[in-house]
Amino acid sequence: MRTGVWLVGARGSVATTSIVGGLALRANLAGPTGCVTELPDLRGPALPAFADLVFGGHDVVTTPLCKRAEALASAGVIPGRLVAALPDELAAVEEELRPAPSGDTQADRAAAAVRDLAGFRDRHDLDRVVVVNVSATEPAARPHAAHSDPEALRAALSGPDEVLPASSLYAYAALEAGCPYVDFTPSTGARLPALHALAVERGLPYGGHDGKTGETLVKSVLAPMFAMRNLAVRSWSGVNLLGGGDGANLADPAANAAKVESKQRVLGETLGYVPQGDTRIDFVEDLGDFKTAWDLVTFAGFLGTRMRMEFTWHGCDSALAAPLVLDLARLTAAAHAAGRVGPLTELAFFFKDPLGAPTHSLAEQWALLTGFARALHAAAPGSADGHAA
Amino acid sequence: MRTGVWLVGARGSVATTSIVGGLALRANLAGPTGCVTELPDLRGPALPAFADLVFGGHDVVTTPLCKRAEALASAGVIPGRLVAALPDELAAVEEELRPAPSGDTQADRAAAAVRDLAGFRDRHDLDRVVVVNVSATEPAARPHAAHSDPEALRAALSGPDEVLPASSLYAYAALEAGCPYVDFTPSTGARLPALHALAVERGLPYGGHDGKTGETLVKSVLAPMFAMRNLAVRSWSGVNLLGGGDGANLADPAANAAKVESKQRVLGETLGYVPQGDTRIDFVEDLGDFKTAWDLVTFAGFLGTRMRMEFTWHGCDSALAAPLVLDLARLTAAAHAAGRVGPLTELAFFFKDPLGAPTHSLAEQWALLTGFARALHAAAPGSADGHAA
Amino acid sequence: MRTGVWLVGARGSVATTSIVGGLALRANLAGPTGCVTELPDLRGPALPAFADLVFGGHDVVTTPLCKRAEALASAGVIPGRLVAALPDELAAVEEELRPAPSGDTQADRAAAAVRDLAGFRDRHDLDRVVVVNVSATEPAARPHAAHSDPEALRAALSGPDEVLPASSLYAYAALEAGCPYVDFTPSTGARLPALHALAVERGLPYGGHDGKTGETLVKSVLAPMFAMRNLAVRSWSGVNLLGGGDGANLADPAANAAKVESKQRVLGETLGYVPQGDTRIDFVEDLGDFKTAWDLVTFAGFLGTRMRMEFTWHGCDSALAAPLVLDLARLTAAAHAAGRVGPLTELAFFFKDPLGAPTHSLAEQWALLTGFARALHAAAPGSADGHAA
Amino acid sequence: MRTGVWLVGARGSVATTSIVGGLALRANLAGPTGCVTELPDLRGPALPAFADLVFGGHDVVTTPLCKRAEALASAGVIPGRLVAALPDELAAVEEELRPAPSGDTQADRAAAAVRDLAGFRDRHDLDRVVVVNVSATEPAARPHAAHSDPEALRAALSGPDEVLPASSLYAYAALEAGCPYVDFTPSTGARLPALHALAVERGLPYGGHDGKTGETLVKSVLAPMFAMRNLAVRSWSGVNLLGGGDGANLADPAANAAKVESKQRVLGETLGYVPQGDTRIDFVEDLGDFKTAWDLVTFAGFLGTRMRMEFTWHGCDSALAAPLVLDLARLTAAAHAAGRVGPLTELAFFFKDPLGAPTHSLAEQWALLTGFARALHAAAPGSADGHAA
Ligand SMILES: NC(=O)c1ccc[n+]([C@@H]2O[C@H](COP(=O)([O-])OP(=O)(O)OC[C@H]3O[C@@H](n4cnc5c(N)ncnc54)[C@H](O)[C@@H]3O)[C@@H](O)[C@H]2O)c1
Ligand SMILES: NC(=O)c1ccc[n+]([C@@H]2O[C@H](COP(=O)([O-])OP(=O)(O)OC[C@H]3O[C@@H](n4cnc5c(N)ncnc54)[C@H](O)[C@@H]3O)[C@@H](O)[C@H]2O)c1
Ligand SMILES: NC(=O)c1ccc[n+]([C@@H]2O[C@H](COP(=O)([O-])OP(=O)(O)OC[C@H]3O[C@@H](n4cnc5c(N)ncnc54)[C@H](O)[C@@H]3O)[C@@H](O)[C@H]2O)c1
Ligand SMILES: NC(=O)c1ccc[n+]([C@@H]2O[C@H](COP(=O)([O-])OP(=O)(O)OC[C@H]3O[C@@H](n4cnc5c(N)ncnc54)[C@H](O)[C@@H]3O)[C@@H](O)[C@H]2O)c1
Ligand code: NA
Ligand code: NA
Repeated sequence: MRTGVWLVGARGSVATTSIVGGLALRANLAGPTGCVTELPDLRGPALPAFADLVFGGHDVVTTPLCKRAEALASAGVIPGRLVAALPDELAAVEEELRPAPSGDTQADRAAAAVRDLAGFRDRHDLDRVVVVNVSATEPAARPHAAHSDPEALRAALSGPDEVLPASSLYAYAALEAGCPYVDFTPSTGARLPALHALAVERGLPYGGHDGKTGETLVKSVLAPMFAMRNLAVRSWSGVNLLGGGDGANLADPAANAAKVESKQRVLGETLGYVPQGDTRIDFVEDLGDFKTAWDLVTFAGFLGTRMRMEFTWHGCDSALAAPLVLDLARLTAAAHAAGRVGPLTELAFFFKDPLGAPTHSLAEQWALLTGFARALHAAAPGSADGHAA
Repeated sequence: MRTGVWLVGARGSVATTSIVGGLALRANLAGPTGCVTELPDLRGPALPAFADLVFGGHDVVTTPLCKRAEALASAGVIPGRLVAALPDELAAVEEELRPAPSGDTQADRAAAAVRDLAGFRDRHDLDRVVVVNVSATEPAARPHAAHSDPEALRAALSGPDEVLPASSLYAYAALEAGCPYVDFTPSTGARLPALHALAVERGLPYGGHDGKTGETLVKSVLAPMFAMRNLAVRSWSGVNLLGGGDGANLADPAANAAKVESKQRVLGETLGYVPQGDTRIDFVEDLGDFKTAWDLVTFAGFLGTRMRMEFTWHGCDSALAAPLVLDLARLTAAAHAAGRVGPLTELAFFFKDPLGAPTHSLAEQWALLTGFARALHAAAPGSADGHAA
Repeated sequence: MRTGVWLVGARGSVATTSIVGGLALRANLAGPTGCVTELPDLRGPALPAFADLVFGGHDVVTTPLCKRAEALASAGVIPGRLVAALPDELAAVEEELRPAPSGDTQADRAAAAVRDLAGFRDRHDLDRVVVVNVSATEPAARPHAAHSDPEALRAALSGPDEVLPASSLYAYAALEAGCPYVDFTPSTGARLPALHALAVERGLPYGGHDGKTGETLVKSVLAPMFAMRNLAVRSWSGVNLLGGGDGANLADPAANAAKVESKQRVLGETLGYVPQGDTRIDFVEDLGDFKTAWDLVTFAGFLGTRMRMEFTWHGCDSALAAPLVLDLARLTAAAHAAGRVGPLTELAFFFKDPLGAPTHSLAEQWALLTGFARALHAAAPGSADGHAA
Repeated sequence: MRTGVWLVGARGSVATTSIVGGLALRANLAGPTGCVTELPDLRGPALPAFADLVFGGHDVVTTPLCKRAEALASAGVIPGRLVAALPDELAAVEEELRPAPSGDTQADRAAAAVRDLAGFRDRHDLDRVVVVNVSATEPAARPHAAHSDPEALRAALSGPDEVLPASSLYAYAALEAGCPYVDFTPSTGARLPALHALAVERGLPYGGHDGKTGETLVKSVLAPMFAMRNLAVRSWSGVNLLGGGDGANLADPAANAAKVESKQRVLGETLGYVPQGDTRIDFVEDLGDFKTAWDLVTFAGFLGTRMRMEFTWHGCDSALAAPLVLDLARLTAAAHAAGRVGPLTELAFFFKDPLGAPTHSLAEQWALLTGFARALHAAAPGSADGHAA
């Protein structure tokens, strides 16, 4: 199952790490640490092999991919030896990177993106292309009447308005090109009634939102722990110190607000009440591609006794995100192959703010995910239970 | 369903907190924070009400219960107003406390304990009595040939040897008296082939071992998190600083070793490999009934990138343990009423070193526990599905 | 040397803790833990004894002092037994508390305050009264032409303008009444050219600003450590989570800004450069009178190697501040007795933002302070070197 | 002032980092971050320039220096580019490394070491050679009657006994060769009456013990902070997790005990009492050349209020130690040039367990050190005040 992975923001940290890692896995130069789809509970015949993944993407900047990779290597995100070992493979991906589509109207730009996607699929004879948005987080989008309906949307896009935020225009183009779409960012992406309707119309699945890689990941196991023990969480305060491109962008208050809100949601929904406290994001350039999060939780136990827990998480966001991008591409490709349409709520495990928000408990999300994978594998051509291709 | 809760170590911190809390719940002076059996997923008709619990127990010391309660109040473990509000209720429990049984042989001492239990059941017209061991942790027990078989055991107990460690002699007496037995400590308790056979013979359930209240509780959600994300845990080191009676006892290297071993087990079994690092227990008198644990986890992500997490847990052990003691008494009483026999492996949620060790993941233990409770409630007399008593 | 301690904000947490503590020390019910002036390097004949301190003050609220004291006791700030043991003493102080002075113009209000101070001095036959501002932190004051000169100030105060912020009006009244003035808050207080001139005119000393009790105290030893080791601090980020009255007030962005700025100053001035990172203050009601601060420091060592340090400080602000208020009252009284006039820069040890800012290193501030005390003691009537009273 | 720096343990982590750093400073490829002697308060004409330092040393292993340097570079301790830029310089130092001296008796081995030192001095036409012990920490030495007196010592060394531990035999040889000796390790080194007498006889200074680089450095500012504030430290517990060669060695209980004891000393001597708690050292191979220390301090403030502080230090020990080795070599050379004889107690700033233990407060040690440097500079030939050489 030859599968294209088209990355929006293809020259960013997450995308570059995903590409280098995907190429290294294909070349057997690295193992799948961090790749959830390689765990016994998830792997199986429905998923495209790493060797079947082909990378391409859009970006607004033109820094060569190998330069970004070298920069990430010297920042300690990826091993320099991998970058040095894959010059031809990186050059081949470089060939498949395109500037952000241009055109007078959003309709023109969408059409250009559709051509980029179709060309990629054809050149590489791909069974399908999954579009994954890993570009910079946008400010919250402004509502527009045309967001509610595909016909209205199509009409409005041909006009002079900036009807859709960039993430949604990419989602629109993906769907128009027959490609499933996954949003790894907190941006709007496919989360508009018009785009949902379009996905259904075209028989396409989509997934999102906002990859869960650090503090929120930890929250998604600690909050259920407090809930299962009937302990009363009184306050949960956090600070996220981060450098890197995404950090600078999030220092922008509008983007920050979007991100913070998706981070706090897990608490209220898991505990059934919202404890005191806030989560802050601060930019500290010196931290580079690493992030340090500190959280303080105060809670009351039996007869009101006051207790507390704090944790510090020091993670490399791109290294945590990249294997999930590969996982999402594989799982979404398999879902598409299996004929799944609409929001992939079973992918909640991967996201801070999952579509359909079935649960914020990591363990319950895991149960959903493994059930999903089992069903895909059971139905897959190569499986004992599956029917012939 | 009038239910006796017989506490071995009844004048200790955990026992006293359990008693004060149980009385306060009965008197509607406190809510059930920390009581797992009051969560929507667990409560139901099979469980005895808090108002149906009657307390008694054994201890080797004679400090009056109300003095221990006052000491715990001034240490901040329980609210002084509760102790002040329950003088008669505490005095009534005091009436039901007995010295550790004496006698020339272990058989004599067991017989004395059986008489204590039977007298308690009769005086209060109880449907059943659950014996819960919350006495001081013992050093690891010495093997003895008579541990393998009830007949051999019975014979040996009448001889001059100290055949059984105290925790197991209490378990033996409980079973002989027809009482289910739960071990909240890491001591041997019912974990001997002879005692298992005896429980089966008498149609009794038993549960254990070692209440999971602090660092291990956190491990039981964090270790699965790393496993589910396919992150490679390189080292996990911990230190537990604790004061209090249990702390002084654990400073004894033999008891310490038993405790540390049950703490590390969760990692190896959850991750599938044992990371580097140790867990230490140190006695720091100044911490009183509170415990501070610090853990450092180093892990590798995608392409080998090194990351780390640390947490500090500052908890009051007795306040964490006491509601679980009540939960265990209620659940074990219900299991007994339902005719369950042998080890209650579905209680793994409560223990560091659960019988049968079905899983060390808190989420999976939760699934086992809620399934167990659902089945009990479905079969209970008061339930829609249950048959008449 | 009978010494009045007049507290502006006399019903607040810091003031109440200072009063209860001062009374308890006088009654020999408590030791001087936290009182710097009782250390061997500082104590001596120049200082008024605790038994010589008499308390009074202003506040805008009317909550009875004993109610505030009881509230602090149940919050764990002061022992309930002390409050219970000192009812008459607290009632006597209650007699000396006055509402914030009223009047049509600021001149009228200042005159009322002067009468309050003079009455207090007379009633208790005091050698002197030290006024200490421990009222709520004000927003940064607006400049006014009359701030530069006592004559202009006096004239303007009789007009309709709010010429001075409250803290400065209290300072003005104190000086007019012949009382030394200390500002324990970050407010403007005596820091205006007109008030400096007035202090000199009246031969009075003054001190401030902003008691150094938590994170900044730690910074004032850690920052010099990095400096003395020639380590390059790359970033220093902090978050202060605090409940209590002061916390709610500081959540007000204007007050917050004043406080944050005085907190960061120590770094730039000690290191000689300003590292990246910010200090945040967040209000978390659940923390009550306790504060948790977390700081992350990243630094580079030899050949650029990157390292990091983090600390968590969990302190009770009022318990840290109150003994310093007593220390400041004693030292300032002694300075006044010794004829010192103008800013007491040797008190820098006590402040986040010390007058004259001679140094931000705690060790150097200590050297200044002990030298200051030695000189006072040497000149004191009771000392070997001093002249008769 | 051409100065030899002879490192015992010359192929170890600290030594290799010192050598690479010294060469890089000489070649202007790196700045002096972490070098205390380059601070304005310390630098001056008495100190040999970095360009005047020449390296040599002893080691029991034969791993080539450039291999060790490359290993440290890939472990992130030193930048790979420096190692790559200094091949000839490293090869030149390699020429000056010698195996641990051999011979039948300790006298023979000492004589061999003296020849090594004299040859080094002659070949490079050095004004003097400072010997610095950075070899593996020894277990505590066994007492021997000959330790008390140089004559007895000389006699005993010619016999069959292992009279001296290795560190002391190196110290003996250094003194016999006319070289000042500094012990950067906790080993015995020159701390024997016989060696002190020998140093005085030969007119040589010596310094030590045990470089202060991590947790103890932090303690040496925090403990005085608590003392200066009259806060009562109730407990101070710490754990040091370390990998690297030194870590493995310290896992050996005997060496561990020596190190732990020198770590706790600072507390008792600074506070005037020993708080509860212990310091642990655990070996965690995965941490490599980095060390993570965590300390918990509980303390009581005014009226007994309980508070706490914890810190985590994540440092690279070799990067912290190496610049201090260069500092010690420079300062000791200057002291020798100035005619100083016996223990250099003014170097306490650098050590966990300083000779003569004048004070454990970093700030007071700093005052001693800067005074010492000022005196040296004032007397130096190149200074305004100094007399001609
Ligand atoms: N790393 C994580 O752990 C993590 C977790 C959750 C979400 N995310 C999200 O992933 C995204 C990428 O993160 P990153 O660290 O790689 O950021 P980055 O800044 O390194 O990369 C973003 C890339 O997007 C490109 N871009 C911006 N606007 C674009 C547009 N209109 N069209 C095409 N490309 C565009 C930028 O040029 C840049 O190359 C962010 O939105 C971040 O919030 C990351
Ligand atoms: N508190 C927790 O979070 C927690 C968690 C897991 C396990 N535990 C275990 O619970 C037990 C009780 O803890 P605690 O803090 O209450 O300790 P504790 O020392 O306060 O109480 C133990 C009591 O047991 C009594 N005792 C000792 N030997 C006895 C004997 N032979 N017969 C009868 N009584 C005896 C003692 O006199 C004492 O009153 C310990 O074994 C501890 O390891 C506690
Ligand atoms: N606690 C510390 O560690 C610490 C450290 C440095 C500075 N401070 C400063 O000390 C001050 C007091 O702190 P707190 O915790 O006691 O606060 P608080 O809110 O408990 O007390 C402040 C008191 O001031 C009174 N007040 C307000 N405006 C007044 C006015 N115009 N005249 C008279 N009284 C007035 C209030 O009614 C209140 O009773 C704050 O400004 C705080 O920033 C405290
Ligand atoms: N790094 C720090 O922060 C720090 C701080 C204080 C003290 N120290 C001390 O510095 C010493 C060196 O630390 P390291 O990390 O470089 O250790 P290391 O193990 O990397 O190096 C020690 C070297 O000494 C050599 N050696 C052992 N015995 C010897 C002998 N008899 N003669 C000559 N050489 C011998 C070993 O072969 C090795 O090359 C240790 O004793 C350590 O305790 C280090
Ligand atoms: Na911490
Ligand atoms: Na921490």
